[in-house]
Amino acid sequence: MPELDLTASSLDLTRTICDIPSVSGEEAGLADAISVAIGTLPHLDVHRDGDTIVARTDLGRGQRVVIAGHIDTVPINHNLPTRDIRNDGEPYLWGRGTVDMKAGVAVQLKLAAELIAPRVDITWMWYDHEEVDADLNGLTRLARTRPDLFEGDFAILGEPSNGTVEGGCNGNLRAIVRTHGVRAHSARAWIGENAIHAAAPALGRLAAYRPRDVAVDGLVYREGLNAVRIGGGVAGNVIPDLCEIEVNYRFAPSRTGDEAAEHVRNVFDGFDVDVVDIAPGARPGLDAPIAKEFLAAVGGEPQPKYGWTDVARFSAMGVPAVNYGPGDPHLAHHDDERVPVAQIEAVEQGLRAWLTGS
Amino acid sequence: MPELDLTASSLDLTRTICDIPSVSGEEAGLADAISVAIGTLPHLDVHRDGDTIVARTDLGRGQRVVIAGHIDTVPINHNLPTRDIRNDGEPYLWGRGTVDMKAGVAVQLKLAAELIAPRVDITWMWYDHEEVDADLNGLTRLARTRPDLFEGDFAILGEPSNGTVEGGCNGNLRAIVRTHGVRAHSARAWIGENAIHAAAPALGRLAAYRPRDVAVDGLVYREGLNAVRIGGGVAGNVIPDLCEIEVNYRFAPSRTGDEAAEHVRNVFDGFDVDVVDIAPGARPGLDAPIAKEFLAAVGGEPQPKYGWTDVARFSAMGVPAVNYGPGDPHLAHHDDERVPVAQIEAVEQGLRAWLTGS
Repeated sequence: MPELDLTASSLDLTRTICDIPSVSGEEAGLADAISVAIGTLPHLDVHRDGDTIVARTDLGRGQRVVIAGHIDTVPINHNLPTRDIRNDGEPYLWGRGTVDMKAGVAVQLKLAAELIAPRVDITWMWYDHEEVDADLNGLTRLARTRPDLFEGDFAILGEPSNGTVEGGCNGNLRAIVRTHGVRAHSARAWIGENAIHAAAPALGRLAAYRPRDVAVDGLVYREGLNAVRIGGGVAGNVIPDLCEIEVNYRFAPSRTGDEAAEHVRNVFDGFDVDVVDIAPGARPGLDAPIAKEFLAAVGGEPQPKYGWTDVARFSAMGVPAVNYGPGDPHLAHHDDERVPVAQIEAVEQGLRAWLTGS
Repeated sequence: MPELDLTASSLDLTRTICDIPSVSGEEAGLADAISVAIGTLPHLDVHRDGDTIVARTDLGRGQRVVIAGHIDTVPINHNLPTRDIRNDGEPYLWGRGTVDMKAGVAVQLKLAAELIAPRVDITWMWYDHEEVDADLNGLTRLARTRPDLFEGDFAILGEPSNGTVEGGCNGNLRAIVRTHGVRAHSARAWIGENAIHAAAPALGRLAAYRPRDVAVDGLVYREGLNAVRIGGGVAGNVIPDLCEIEVNYRFAPSRTGDEAAEHVRNVFDGFDVDVVDIAPGARPGLDAPIAKEFLAAVGGEPQPKYGWTDVARFSAMGVPAVNYGPGDPHLAHHDDERVPVAQIEAVEQGLRAWLTGS
């Protein structure tokens, strides 16, 4: 089993844990290595659940912060092992997981070992299966069996945010819009009714749709309503009786899931709409005093998070939560995934500054 | 090998050849049975090419008529063996192939054996692979190797036409209309460009399209322009960069294939249009004196044929051609395919009357 040296630099630690492949479902090796390394630290109580590891300080501080990161990645595509590269003269670490989100995890591991007496109690969480179905997510499982471990006054997810604080996240809704018709031989089309033609006004509404920009707690969230898939047709000589449009609605955290569903049904009024999945967003929660302290310590201008992340899970539990990690989110899942070394170091310093009050 | 009694009634002969399954590609058994039965007839010169059989009289008549029928069927779907049924009190033969087009073939086989001295020379053709790609069609093959066998003054295809004469056929064009975009994560849709949304005006034009009714040589052909398939999308969280609409244009025989392609390109002006297949139609050709004689002998009001048939092949060779066979074309390929016994007998009598001049 590879050994993790938690006293190494956060760059070296990032390189080491990226080079231990951990595609969703295959996190055991990395989880084992983390367990062993963290298990030697007397200042942390360690709990393991599947491939999720929770390590807590218990110093009796007045406040507790949850700091979490997922250890799985999307599939490798000829982008491991990692490489040290330069981009516009700046040093980068290149390879699967460098952005999403092992650099963030490396910083967390290093600080978990180093900070034996932080000014707040800390619950560190490293979890599995974030890149796949929410049902499989290690935090979903843990929230069911050990909801007490989620207690805290604030939560920080180390998701890539370019080293700035990204507050909250948009919600995510998936719906199927169906149009119906009557099959017939295409040589006698007038006997049938074309379901693909019937989809024209639904696509027309999507094309004409102007998404909102919504300010929530001082951050502006951009929404989006898009067809992500369309399908219909039986054979080359048959008038089709069904067309299905899969629609994805990214909605500002000012809207509840129910309100988002109602909005989509309104947009497609008169059509057969089947809302199949709703993940509500998260308000940025930056007005909480502890969040303001955090922002002051790490610096920079907070930004809204557009993609859905597990901050929504904490937000739903009443814990204000932000994303704060190295790496450009646009490069997550990209085959050329690469993280600037300077961002890894900046996030390490930002977290340390706040957690030690230095 | 099953034996064919060509002196049996056309109903019994239909039953016998329907109960010899001959789905496209598996016609050998039926072709063998036909070869053997026809091979015993001294008044016919028989030529076999694969599973296509050509049998010709050579009486030195002033005119020659080609009478053809395909011996393959679409796949069986629990609809063999045949059954004698009644529908509204009328006797029917039920089962795969009864309509498309073994009743027509049975009548032809019976008359080929019976008519040793018809008033015109006859070229009988029974051919394979009509229900699949045109490349596989037995007549395509034969036209390449033995074009001389197609010579004639008139052609009759025994395709189901409810026992009336259906003249010519609509042409058939297939095109792909593509819209393009730029991929992006659906959480940041504004970075991309949605190819499915871009398809809205193309579907709008299809929905608004009013097909023509076109009179050609006295018959009125109904056209049709339809989307038969649509597809697009990459994943549930990706803005799609491609949408493809497969369009089927059925066009009156007054239009050439090139004119039909130009029309489709005009309808989708501004879009990326790829015409992938054109089968020109056939003018009814009912103004030829021999066609008029035929019409007078078999009686009834001629109708236009909407579906594409091999009459177009003869028409393209300069041979006027019509469809004339028992069975309702709406029931072709239907699981409840069934032919009225009276229509089989009427077509037999009609053909006999004309071919004998009685």
